[in-house]
Amino acid sequence: MNTLTNLELAYMAGFLDGDGTIIAQIVRKKDYVLKYQLRVTVSFIQSSSRKHFLLQLKDETGLGTNRDRKDGISELNIVGREQVLPFLKQLEPYLRLKQKQAKLAMQICEQLPFIGNNPVKFLELCKLSDEIAQLNDSKKRTITSATVRQTFIDAKLISE
Amino acid sequence: MNTLTNLELAYMAGFLDGDGTIIAQIVRKKDYVLKYQLRVTVSFIQSSSRKHFLLQLKDETGLGTNRDRKDGISELNIVGREQVLPFLKQLEPYLRLKQKQAKLAMQICEQLPFIGNNPVKFLELCKLSDEIAQLNDSKKRTITSATVRQTFIDAKLISE
Repeated sequence: MNTLTNLELAYMAGFLDGDGTIIAQIVRKKDYVLKYQLRVTVSFIQSSSRKHFLLQLKDETGLGTNRDRKDGISELNIVGREQVLPFLKQLEPYLRLKQKQAKLAMQICEQLPFIGNNPVKFLELCKLSDEIAQLNDSKKRTITSATVRQTFIDAKLISE
Repeated sequence: MNTLTNLELAYMAGFLDGDGTIIAQIVRKKDYVLKYQLRVTVSFIQSSSRKHFLLQLKDETGLGTNRDRKDGISELNIVGREQVLPFLKQLEPYLRLKQKQAKLAMQICEQLPFIGNNPVKFLELCKLSDEIAQLNDSKKRTITSATVRQTFIDAKLISE
């Protein structure tokens, strides 16, 4: 990622607090030993008519992928620990509303490389992802740490 | 208003670009000679559960009035040229998406004291308020410069 000035970071923190999201999704992956993957994402969204703004953010940060949705909304998605961790490390001191989400997402990013295929440790990170969702007032989540836990019990990876 | 640091202004500009509004409403005022008033407003909104954020913005800027809506949303409204003009003057250089709206709102603020009861001049400012609404993708406006123009024609304040 590019090095950003304090003013750029303060602006982006304000925008993210107002209209961005920090999420950690639990994604089903059939061919993974633990059957799930944790995916952290920082997203900026804007009407596609003002997509230039998102392209500028992409240039400025050197991060993310642009996507045009069918509903006239465009996104800039910064996905995965390699991109999210350095970005949030710089941004976090300037956040006022989503600082807790940022800290939890950074914790997930930092611990992910060390969990290997340990189901107990993975489950702990899934609980952090639940916490982020709760802070985001998220209501439409289908896979939570409880889902993962039940899968692990059924597969006898952990005991009840 | 309080003097704000560049970092505070950059943050607020980011937040306003993401989730705030700059509007200029044309308000019916029966006892006014011109029957309408132009009211400029800068608003920050947030879920009432995070109202502390808006109270902090109010303290920080020394501007605005807090309001709790019935739908669980709270607002910080900075209303009228006396408050809006100095705020936007400081904020404008940091805006990326709502810079045009800010410039038009400042133009209205600056010219308002000089229009007296001149209907032609007032109508010109109403057109600037139309421009702001258009930039905001606003759809639910009931009183536009066309409404005012028709009122002025009916009252024989201007000719067609």
